[in-house]
Amino acid sequence: MSSTSPSRPPSPAIIFETLNAYHRTSALRAAIELDLFTAIADGNTTAKTIAARVQVSEKGARVLCDFLTIMGFLAKQSEAYSLTPDSATFLNRHSPAYLGTASGFFAYMERQFNASEGLTAAVRKGGTMLSDQGIMSPEDPIWVEFARSMAPMMAMPAGLLAKKIIGDRPDKWKVLDIAAGHGLFGISIARQDPNAHIVALDWAPVLQVARENAAKANVSDRFSTIAGNALEVDLGSGYDVVVIANFLQLLDAKSIDSLMRKVHAALKPGGGAVTLGFIPNDDRVSPPGDANFGMIALAFTANGDAYTVSEYERMFQNAGFSRSELLQLDPSPQRVIVSYK
Amino acid sequence: MSSTSPSRPPSPAIIFETLNAYHRTSALRAAIELDLFTAIADGNTTAKTIAARVQVSEKGARVLCDFLTIMGFLAKQSEAYSLTPDSATFLNRHSPAYLGTASGFFAYMERQFNASEGLTAAVRKGGTMLSDQGIMSPEDPIWVEFARSMAPMMAMPAGLLAKKIIGDRPDKWKVLDIAAGHGLFGISIARQDPNAHIVALDWAPVLQVARENAAKANVSDRFSTIAGNALEVDLGSGYDVVVIANFLQLLDAKSIDSLMRKVHAALKPGGGAVTLGFIPNDDRVSPPGDANFGMIALAFTANGDAYTVSEYERMFQNAGFSRSELLQLDPSPQRVIVSYK
Repeated sequence: MSSTSPSRPPSPAIIFETLNAYHRTSALRAAIELDLFTAIADGNTTAKTIAARVQVSEKGARVLCDFLTIMGFLAKQSEAYSLTPDSATFLNRHSPAYLGTASGFFAYMERQFNASEGLTAAVRKGGTMLSDQGIMSPEDPIWVEFARSMAPMMAMPAGLLAKKIIGDRPDKWKVLDIAAGHGLFGISIARQDPNAHIVALDWAPVLQVARENAAKANVSDRFSTIAGNALEVDLGSGYDVVVIANFLQLLDAKSIDSLMRKVHAALKPGGGAVTLGFIPNDDRVSPPGDANFGMIALAFTANGDAYTVSEYERMFQNAGFSRSELLQLDPSPQRVIVSYK
Repeated sequence: MSSTSPSRPPSPAIIFETLNAYHRTSALRAAIELDLFTAIADGNTTAKTIAARVQVSEKGARVLCDFLTIMGFLAKQSEAYSLTPDSATFLNRHSPAYLGTASGFFAYMERQFNASEGLTAAVRKGGTMLSDQGIMSPEDPIWVEFARSMAPMMAMPAGLLAKKIIGDRPDKWKVLDIAAGHGLFGISIARQDPNAHIVALDWAPVLQVARENAAKANVSDRFSTIAGNALEVDLGSGYDVVVIANFLQLLDAKSIDSLMRKVHAALKPGGGAVTLGFIPNDDRVSPPGDANFGMIALAFTANGDAYTVSEYERMFQNAGFSRSELLQLDPSPQRVIVSYK
């Protein structure tokens, strides 16, 4: 083989790296727990000064910082570490977009995952081994954890989505936020438009978190709630917009059909349903950030899936929607489908 | 920001992906356990036929194959999956280079890792939380597991190293293989050169595995052993070459110095010590496959490290070696340092 051949010889490197990939999870979690990114943001840039600040061994600080550099969370110049733009935005505790809190949710998920029989059993069965319904069991405590710890991660997409949705609405209008969780999708709309009234739907203990966030955002007077299972409760009617964020992907196709018929009925003529979540292309393997969700759905839900753009469009059409369009929430990679009544 | 700006806005995608990186380990292990790669090699290329062959749900097969495609282990064309060159070489059970057996060793390591207090504690301490000496405890059973399951992964580098080492040696010559494990580094030399006699050193239960491999390779008559701790036993003398593969990186600098002085004394004048392992550049963050080992050394050993090229060269010089050179075992990414007496 010529040494200038563009095709490299087969290598086991990817196998070795993947069988050790759990180290990546563990190392990032350790760095967040130790608040190492904030230490660097505060001007401690060498292994020695970082170690002193976060109270660890100098060798431990050096090895962890090098590993974080290899993974792309830090940059290194000679002996000095610095934050990448992603780390500076999301992992420095002083940043308004800090989402180190999300680490708790992911750790909770990982403990659940490790306590189950592993992925082989889930692949055999075609769904989660966690319990009959996985994380979709009624009032599963994971959703309070999710609502509390994922809010910072959702602030940016929620703000971008609000901008897209509001448009030109001179009169009072009404938004239903299904599986609202932290409530940020509805709350962002209410903050940006004083004419918007939000109805948030979720399990009762989760709505407690959403109401706290609405109060913090000073929109409580335009924020009401419906407690219960979205598939069972009365959704109300006359909505201009129904937001369904990170939810349909947890359900089976039949439940989606049944929910979307209810959503269609609850919308005003000309109103729109907004589906946000992990939505891969029809090849099911791109974009990777969306397509990866298939594995998460398999591991944690009985019948959820990373439904593709075409699958959603077909389901929404069957449920009565006249047309759907795929939008990207630039500059985030987040994708949404808007379906019109 | 202009939409044509080459710098993207900050994104939490890498954080999300890293906190879920353990899924990658679990998915590859599941695919190896299910022998999914062999099923595809045998002509089952759709989720339906793969599922029937490996006895899993069709949805499970589809989700797992899509995830393996995203990770780079499979290619996908329409609904048909195929093996990448890496997977065809190393993950198809019919391939002579099959190394699915390595999965057992990695699973053993992961169970050890999960049973410890996690990486945060190891970073605090600057070394493993597994036990006082981590996997370097005398006769730790991990090394028999390592010898049995990692042999296929080492066959290629061992063959390449043998080619580099043998050169022009018309007379009988003698090789010491320290921490021999599966024994393949010495055995490959003996197979390629009938003038070579190998002395393999390791814990007694591990040498059993090496002797089995020597017998399979028909070199038992030129293969002898020394049982015990390399730092304590008599190494013998008059060696032309001493191979030290994947070992120094598990030790502290003082032990390396003491071992390399013994190695120097055991070599003939003009003889060479060959150090193979994970050897990052002096920046400690490249190449990633080598530099990543720093984290593994921290998690699993008391004092091991991904020593850099310069650190090794300095240590070898202090131990009496006249000069060292870094070689690459093309076409593999494996690096070795040869140090001359």
